[in-house]
Amino acid sequence: MFLRIDKLQAELPAPKRRDPNAAAALQELLGGKYGEMSTLGNYMFQSFNFRSKDKLRPFYNLVASITAEELGHVELVSNGVAMLNNGPDNDGDSVDGGDISGAPFEDMKDIRLAAAFLSGGGGSAPVNSNGASWNNDFVTSTGNVVVDLLHNFHLECGARLHKLRVYETMTDPTGREVCGYLLVRGSVHAHAYALALKQITGVAIEKFLPTPNINLDKIPECQKYLNEGSHRRLYTFSPNDYKEMSGIWGNGEMALPGDPPGELVVVDGAPEGGKIHQLTGVPSAFTPDYAPQEMFEIASKLYKKSR
Amino acid sequence: MFLRIDKLQAELPAPKRRDPNAAAALQELLGGKYGEMSTLGNYMFQSFNFRSKDKLRPFYNLVASITAEELGHVELVSNGVAMLNNGPDNDGDSVDGGDISGAPFEDMKDIRLAAAFLSGGGGSAPVNSNGASWNNDFVTSTGNVVVDLLHNFHLECGARLHKLRVYETMTDPTGREVCGYLLVRGSVHAHAYALALKQITGVAIEKFLPTPNINLDKIPECQKYLNEGSHRRLYTFSPNDYKEMSGIWGNGEMALPGDPPGELVVVDGAPEGGKIHQLTGVPSAFTPDYAPQEMFEIASKLYKKSR
Amino acid sequence: MFLRIDKLQAELPAPKRRDPNAAAALQELLGGKYGEMSTLGNYMFQSFNFRSKDKLRPFYNLVASITAEELGHVELVSNGVAMLNNGPDNDGDSVDGGDISGAPFEDMKDIRLAAAFLSGGGGSAPVNSNGASWNNDFVTSTGNVVVDLLHNFHLECGARLHKLRVYETMTDPTGREVCGYLLVRGSVHAHAYALALKQITGVAIEKFLPTPNINLDKIPECQKYLNEGSHRRLYTFSPNDYKEMSGIWGNGEMALPGDPPGELVVVDGAPEGGKIHQLTGVPSAFTPDYAPQEMFEIASKLYKKSR
Amino acid sequence: MFLRIDKLQAELPAPKRRDPNAAAALQELLGGKYGEMSTLGNYMFQSFNFRSKDKLRPFYNLVASITAEELGHVELVSNGVAMLNNGPDNDGDSVDGGDISGAPFEDMKDIRLAAAFLSGGGGSAPVNSNGASWNNDFVTSTGNVVVDLLHNFHLECGARLHKLRVYETMTDPTGREVCGYLLVRGSVHAHAYALALKQITGVAIEKFLPTPNINLDKIPECQKYLNEGSHRRLYTFSPNDYKEMSGIWGNGEMALPGDPPGELVVVDGAPEGGKIHQLTGVPSAFTPDYAPQEMFEIASKLYKKSR
Amino acid sequence: MFLRIDKLQAELPAPKRRDPNAAAALQELLGGKYGEMSTLGNYMFQSFNFRSKDKLRPFYNLVASITAEELGHVELVSNGVAMLNNGPDNDGDSVDGGDISGAPFEDMKDIRLAAAFLSGGGGSAPVNSNGASWNNDFVTSTGNVVVDLLHNFHLECGARLHKLRVYETMTDPTGREVCGYLLVRGSVHAHAYALALKQITGVAIEKFLPTPNINLDKIPECQKYLNEGSHRRLYTFSPNDYKEMSGIWGNGEMALPGDPPGELVVVDGAPEGGKIHQLTGVPSAFTPDYAPQEMFEIASKLYKKSR
Amino acid sequence: MFLRIDKLQAELPAPKRRDPNAAAALQELLGGKYGEMSTLGNYMFQSFNFRSKDKLRPFYNLVASITAEELGHVELVSNGVAMLNNGPDNDGDSVDGGDISGAPFEDMKDIRLAAAFLSGGGGSAPVNSNGASWNNDFVTSTGNVVVDLLHNFHLECGARLHKLRVYETMTDPTGREVCGYLLVRGSVHAHAYALALKQITGVAIEKFLPTPNINLDKIPECQKYLNEGSHRRLYTFSPNDYKEMSGIWGNGEMALPGDPPGELVVVDGAPEGGKIHQLTGVPSAFTPDYAPQEMFEIASKLYKKSR
Repeated sequence: MFLRIDKLQAELPAPKRRDPNAAAALQELLGGKYGEMSTLGNYMFQSFNFRSKDKLRPFYNLVASITAEELGHVELVSNGVAMLNNGPDNDGDSVDGGDISGAPFEDMKDIRLAAAFLSGGGGSAPVNSNGASWNNDFVTSTGNVVVDLLHNFHLECGARLHKLRVYETMTDPTGREVCGYLLVRGSVHAHAYALALKQITGVAIEKFLPTPNINLDKIPECQKYLNEGSHRRLYTFSPNDYKEMSGIWGNGEMALPGDPPGELVVVDGAPEGGKIHQLTGVPSAFTPDYAPQEMFEIASKLYKKSR
Repeated sequence: MFLRIDKLQAELPAPKRRDPNAAAALQELLGGKYGEMSTLGNYMFQSFNFRSKDKLRPFYNLVASITAEELGHVELVSNGVAMLNNGPDNDGDSVDGGDISGAPFEDMKDIRLAAAFLSGGGGSAPVNSNGASWNNDFVTSTGNVVVDLLHNFHLECGARLHKLRVYETMTDPTGREVCGYLLVRGSVHAHAYALALKQITGVAIEKFLPTPNINLDKIPECQKYLNEGSHRRLYTFSPNDYKEMSGIWGNGEMALPGDPPGELVVVDGAPEGGKIHQLTGVPSAFTPDYAPQEMFEIASKLYKKSR
Repeated sequence: MFLRIDKLQAELPAPKRRDPNAAAALQELLGGKYGEMSTLGNYMFQSFNFRSKDKLRPFYNLVASITAEELGHVELVSNGVAMLNNGPDNDGDSVDGGDISGAPFEDMKDIRLAAAFLSGGGGSAPVNSNGASWNNDFVTSTGNVVVDLLHNFHLECGARLHKLRVYETMTDPTGREVCGYLLVRGSVHAHAYALALKQITGVAIEKFLPTPNINLDKIPECQKYLNEGSHRRLYTFSPNDYKEMSGIWGNGEMALPGDPPGELVVVDGAPEGGKIHQLTGVPSAFTPDYAPQEMFEIASKLYKKSR
Repeated sequence: MFLRIDKLQAELPAPKRRDPNAAAALQELLGGKYGEMSTLGNYMFQSFNFRSKDKLRPFYNLVASITAEELGHVELVSNGVAMLNNGPDNDGDSVDGGDISGAPFEDMKDIRLAAAFLSGGGGSAPVNSNGASWNNDFVTSTGNVVVDLLHNFHLECGARLHKLRVYETMTDPTGREVCGYLLVRGSVHAHAYALALKQITGVAIEKFLPTPNINLDKIPECQKYLNEGSHRRLYTFSPNDYKEMSGIWGNGEMALPGDPPGELVVVDGAPEGGKIHQLTGVPSAFTPDYAPQEMFEIASKLYKKSR
Repeated sequence: MFLRIDKLQAELPAPKRRDPNAAAALQELLGGKYGEMSTLGNYMFQSFNFRSKDKLRPFYNLVASITAEELGHVELVSNGVAMLNNGPDNDGDSVDGGDISGAPFEDMKDIRLAAAFLSGGGGSAPVNSNGASWNNDFVTSTGNVVVDLLHNFHLECGARLHKLRVYETMTDPTGREVCGYLLVRGSVHAHAYALALKQITGVAIEKFLPTPNINLDKIPECQKYLNEGSHRRLYTFSPNDYKEMSGIWGNGEMALPGDPPGELVVVDGAPEGGKIHQLTGVPSAFTPDYAPQEMFEIASKLYKKSR
Repeated sequence: MFLRIDKLQAELPAPKRRDPNAAAALQELLGGKYGEMSTLGNYMFQSFNFRSKDKLRPFYNLVASITAEELGHVELVSNGVAMLNNGPDNDGDSVDGGDISGAPFEDMKDIRLAAAFLSGGGGSAPVNSNGASWNNDFVTSTGNVVVDLLHNFHLECGARLHKLRVYETMTDPTGREVCGYLLVRGSVHAHAYALALKQITGVAIEKFLPTPNINLDKIPECQKYLNEGSHRRLYTFSPNDYKEMSGIWGNGEMALPGDPPGELVVVDGAPEGGKIHQLTGVPSAFTPDYAPQEMFEIASKLYKKSR
């Protein structure tokens, strides 16, 4: 079972401007082969299909709890995409779409992924930066523990490369922060799968890291997370379960050489997280509707009744 | 953010026998257009992309919290698929795959979805009962609240039809229980979206229910859940958030006519749930590995260190 | 614009028994690369995109009117699929699905394309015999007249091969009649595109026919259509348009050597056609609904009002 | 069976300029999830697969005849796409492609959907505004009448939203007219499915309309059609069949509140329609060919022979 | 550039019987995510896209020459699939398809992948064991050498698992030999990528092998190849190029512990290989045609002229 | 079996500038329906699946040897794509990616196919100019010789049209040379399949050529190849096999009328070919890595050991 908390895993700055092509680039980290839907999909189905869960508890717990974190990554990238499509935070929702006869969204026919506006109204979707859909081709869940873990290690290294390249295209603080946060957390996951594989095979595969061979100290947006030790923490993302992965993450293992030093530690529960930004409605684009005033009033009454 | 609990939303009986074609049929409820990946994918992206979340809090909360429940449905169906592929619960994991030169899995070339064994080792995957992948085509997230909610209402009615038909092909108690549980919970979601739409439009669309026009009292596997009032409950699936959906689900609204009577109620947190069955490894199929004994011992040591 | 007539292009015999795998084989002729959705899709988009329609009227008319015939082919194969899934004609619709708790459709989990029942309720869908979807990959519409016509000629020859092979798997009269009729009409289309190409290039490409090199007199189900001269007729499938394709089909051209001799002729309008069989509802499968009696009564009243 | 008439359902103005990105945006209404290929595909397969057609005649007729109208919608959007790719009407076809060595189509490598030129020569294709293909995922044909009709109602509401957004990106009169016409006719279909559902369920679901909540009087291009009463008419699109849908559309039902008042009426046959614009060949792009003069002369001779 | 030799890389025994479902299972090794089309596609595009080829010559050569070997693997599996579909070798081609009116291929509607017969006439296709197509989703070509090599190492380990499972379903000697040969050669490739990674990272990743943890001595069909030392050889598959990969494969490196001992060695050119079996035509299935006698005679005359 | 030679089939000039959208257009000739992956895929699987190879040797040899040439075409287009993405040749590889915090690739979010950079690092991939994947839908391998050859003839004519259109968008010499070379070689293949069909059917189908109806003398980049007689040569692309296709290509047949005159001739082996350009690494884009200096040194040592 899963629970939800109405926060993001990290605090995102508001966008400085509307940039649909930056949002489209960020989609690579959502629906691409090495995006968050893929890390989620792989670990989720692997955890469901995990054999001999009891006998392999520390390994199962690792995959199971990282699944929960990946859900939050999908959420974070999705919020980044929608924020970049919608532009700076804005307190005042419009109450009417007004006259729409003058082609108010003419510029939307030239954005790279026009369907993001025409169909999605500026929201995110499980597609890559070219608009190709995420699908089962990106899921490896063989039931063989070594093959699955090795796949996951490769997946995290590939994902790191993709995050770095997307980061290099981003000028807006929202998109850059998404990448910076994910780079730190993705490194944790690569490290964790390496340690799990080392336990089983005896091979010090964590020495591959970092792949690509750039330290996180080169990415300004990562520093805050490194300073607070995020790179040394695996959260259980659970009220009470999954703690036994500390046999793998912990157990005397230390941070990677290029990162701030210290011991690896499993942390109960979730990080504090950051607020979910309001995506201001654009009534002329029919979000949340053309004339939302009445809907707002209905919601306000229902809200009061519920308290 | 999301948390995970190491239980299923419902207690499943163990399968009586291995039945890969039943597992393949159950895949329709996982990766089909009207399967749980679709309900999850739609509500998840809609909740990420929801405009004016604050002003439309009860509606946003409804979609956001049902998303968390759908994660558990994906988990439940996946477990059902893997259990049907693996057969009765079995305490003793084999420790060696033995001699594999005699075509021990000859029968697997004739099962309907051979890749479920050849690639998935008997696990579930985000595909439908014909092996076609789940993808973005099944996601509607327009940013328009009425269109999205109407889509969701139609989706739940269609999903109910698919659950009924899959149920009608199942003889094994595991698959039947999965269907029975999902029929009750899916009815709750259809009802909830109907009530949300009624608040906005004034149309008593909940009178469509049940669609198809069969009452749940015809399904023996549903009775336990009806008796405990599951059909009247929406869980927040959250430690502290989403309670304000009680403005929609609650607020004097009552159970549907054909179901046991009573008031609708929002319940904090998650249901008690049921245990996750052990999927016994099959070393001759390389799950969790061909000779897992050493891996079990490593895991056992790590487990002890972690306590 | 298009009009519709509530008849099939040919009279189909009722199936002798329910045969979902035969229906699944017939799907190759509906949604496969060389199926009727492909002939429809190619000619429809080519006719929409045709350049210099006025100057190339006979060629445009040929493609445009065959498009209309292909619509009827899609309809014919679809009816064949649904009929084979549903079995013999049956006057009496059931009025109630009864007790469904005993796995009444257990056998449906073993049919080749289980989604045809689970999702489609026994209906046809634009997929091939393996369940893979028809899509834009099968459409060639280049705007170059010679390339498009050559594509079409190849498509009809390939389609003929597929029809022959599907025919060879069919024992039921419904499926065999579908194939027999389509073989005759497909030959007409191959012949027509050959003649169009001959006009432009001077190459006697119709001498390729028949491809594969089997005469229609080997197929008992074709004889009725050959006897009535169907192989020499192109219908305009229009109240008043497209007649000028007689410059290509006609104009002294004769039937192919292996077929009954005679001149090619353009016929105004459509063939007489055959009746659409009733697909009896199966309330236990929720078609048209679990308890359709009330729906039948409503429809009956509405019908009376409409007369 | 289907017949074809060599006219469009509406008279389109010629484009003012060539605008491939506008054509690409319009593709959303052709091959997108909520585009005309989808309305066509859904109603076509539902009508083929309809159970108990005789007993449910008014409902069957409704779906069957709207199918025929949707064919014309696919044609209309396709013509719009091709016209926008080709630019203003032009009487004189060029007779030679001339010197092509100077990269005459350099600008085509920068248009959003380059394959529309490179492969399609400026024609339409069954893809959405991002170039993703239409496919079976967009077809719901369950055989359950209520589920199918509810799906259709949701589909038309979603389609209306997409038409509105595409309209808002269009500056050219051709694209705007396509949207304006389809908005009126799509509203008719939403209304019709609502009335069908109301007959079966008793729920006044037509009160959802218009969804999104903007009246058609806000769209200048719709006024002509509203003035002539198009919003109150369902055409049978048939020489003689489908009239009994007047039990649903008619029977005292009235136009929607925001539209010009009046009674709903079934009209025999098809609307008068508008002319199909000539898509001028571009020999340098090999449409209809590099040196089409001889082809024009051949066609001219064949045309004369055919009269 | 590539050259072709009219032999297979290994000598395959003729099938004992026709077994379309075994052929369908073998398809997993052709068009599945971990099949030979994937190893080919990955290494081919990586070799095309390889940066700094001159400076990284030993690494480039490794990927480039293995690409050529993978082409032969695709050929080998394809031949295996077609042979299993066609049955025992047969000297005498039929010269006529005879009377086909008696549903001679009725059994083909029940095989798992009916399109393999209906469309492919019993040939192989780039699809997996469920009929899903190979595509770009399976290609990783990032331009980053470590990520690409790590991907390849994971790919070969995953491919080994799939080969083992397919092997376990095969009773026919043809399919078993295909698996046996590929298991040996795939192990070579996994070993080679491990050694390449070890050179760059210093991590002894070859100690992962074998993954899954079963030695090849458990597979009878592998012994012949092990005995001749195939597991220690990398062929350049080139007249003159790629020899410098001996810096990686060779250079004192030895066979893996579980395999027959000895030094690794680069061998110029290709192995001797085995004959391509004749796929006997089945005229009743229109292969090579319905009445191929004349075609045989034409070919015979052309052959004589060519000598 | 296949061998590889470390050269391209033609000498390509270096690009004058980096042009990702030109690279994206060129992708149509790689992964599009009428691209080189399709010609390769069709002929490769047809040659694997060819029935009665011995009896139909000249025809089999033709398809088998052209397969090998198509591999080189895929390589040539891929190199062209990667070169256009990477820009002019550059001797000096950078040794460090430096400071990447300033969004050094901001412009990459606006290129048409952003994933070509974000995921592919500027390499080619089996997708078309819209980013849609190549797949099995593009492969026709029916086992019927006439249908397959006719398909191939149509495919080469369609491919010629696509090459011409892509050529018309190219200003850079690299892309233009790729098109020029492929136009000549594609014409050879169209001619060869026409002659094969003529032998079997007696129809002079080569008179269709050239299709589209433009002679190669209109394309400056083709002249060099015409002058050296490339249009009259079919290479065996084999050390010793496939020579007997001279019964079809040769045997007194002459060059097409619009091309320089002369007899057709089969040439043993491969053309001389041209050099593979170095794709300079871009360490800031992590190709071949962020800090490749050490990797270069390792490779240099391994290279020396191997000599």
